[in-house]
Amino acid sequence: MMTINTRRSIRKYSGKEVGDELLNRLLTEAARTQTMGNMQLYSVVVTRSEEMKAKLAPAHFNQPMVTEAPVVLTVCADFNRASSWCRCRKAEPGYDNFLSFMNAATDALLYTQTFCNLAEEEGLGLCFLGTTVYMPQMIIDTLKLPQLVMPVATITLGWPAEEPPMSDRLPLESFVHDETYHDYSPADIDRYYGPKEALEENKEFVRINNKETLAQVYADIRYTKKDNEAMSAGMMEALKKQGFIQ
Amino acid sequence: MMTINTRRSIRKYSGKEVGDELLNRLLTEAARTQTMGNMQLYSVVVTRSEEMKAKLAPAHFNQPMVTEAPVVLTVCADFNRASSWCRCRKAEPGYDNFLSFMNAATDALLYTQTFCNLAEEEGLGLCFLGTTVYMPQMIIDTLKLPQLVMPVATITLGWPAEEPPMSDRLPLESFVHDETYHDYSPADIDRYYGPKEALEENKEFVRINNKETLAQVYADIRYTKKDNEAMSAGMMEALKKQGFIQ
Repeated sequence: MMTINTRRSIRKYSGKEVGDELLNRLLTEAARTQTMGNMQLYSVVVTRSEEMKAKLAPAHFNQPMVTEAPVVLTVCADFNRASSWCRCRKAEPGYDNFLSFMNAATDALLYTQTFCNLAEEEGLGLCFLGTTVYMPQMIIDTLKLPQLVMPVATITLGWPAEEPPMSDRLPLESFVHDETYHDYSPADIDRYYGPKEALEENKEFVRINNKETLAQVYADIRYTKKDNEAMSAGMMEALKKQGFIQ
Repeated sequence: MMTINTRRSIRKYSGKEVGDELLNRLLTEAARTQTMGNMQLYSVVVTRSEEMKAKLAPAHFNQPMVTEAPVVLTVCADFNRASSWCRCRKAEPGYDNFLSFMNAATDALLYTQTFCNLAEEEGLGLCFLGTTVYMPQMIIDTLKLPQLVMPVATITLGWPAEEPPMSDRLPLESFVHDETYHDYSPADIDRYYGPKEALEENKEFVRINNKETLAQVYADIRYTKKDNEAMSAGMMEALKKQGFIQ
């Protein structure tokens, strides 16, 4: 898995198809990932049709990868299948609650990441769309997800047609804590975030956004309190409609 | 990453230490995993001391791996560090909401799974403890997690001292959907779950639990509605105390 050391998100794909045989092998292998009680509380909806990609795009702010990638995968937390199994077997399922959503979302996200690791090792390029949880109801409606199924991850997948620079990372000591959590002093923040803020691309990012600091670009423009609160309400509403919150 | 095809969870570890150099290399490499806006919204608390393992064990139902593994990793959704960064840089963070918890939990779980894949490729054995979200307040108190930090995954890690049989998996067609979600008929359930139910170990599992079906063992004993609802309330309470729900 040496590819991890050179990985970057890929947003431009060549015209070459991702064959069913390869895709199915990767989807099968990823299922070796551990899950809660070996219940595999996830489902994957595979989107290849132009029509369905166009319908999904608005939920992802019309990022061009959604319509341009040969394959879009929507990975869902799924307690519907396990609950159907229970009902077919004289058992009363009790999974219409928030903990069960977290259990299934965990299974789905771990599965997703093994899939990503495997796909990148195969030379495929992909982009993980965090937008999946922003307006989940649009995705639920488009993919016809029933109760107890909730989208938690989207992957756009194809053969790379770009080789973007690798993005920076925080140093190990900034996110690893020895025995107990040690909170961050202003000096720690300077030490850990200084190199990121000093990157020419980030300085440019601050300039074009007319801000004073990189953190302001994040807090005031990219991920604002107002948007986060509106989308939190939307997600809670979707969790209720899908039956995970009463 | 061919190890994925033979992976199993490992619950018994040899006395051999997991060196700091190896652990730190794996924790560093795993951080190449994509995160929201490259913010790396996670922290890892490394537990090596016997005293801290003993304190963590009850939160994980005293499963023996917690005290027997040389290393226990608790991976947390962390918006505290990014918020501290904002406050040190004249920006007002807006991450005290449910969507931000989901964003950070996603980052944390994807990071965790890349770490697991890298560690297993290195020959290490590990067990993912789903119990992390069952009684999170005990873990929060033990590891002294501040506001906007929430444990979402625990890994017990060491060199394998067992080689358990591989567990079964559902067939690919049971969890992959073409273009839209297709709900499960009773015939689908029979086809997908029949092989699992026919396994000798699962038949034995039904017998020793005095149940009629495997699904009843799950719904009536292992993961009950009553427990799920109580733990859902506990998790919501912890999310409120940690500042992710107002």
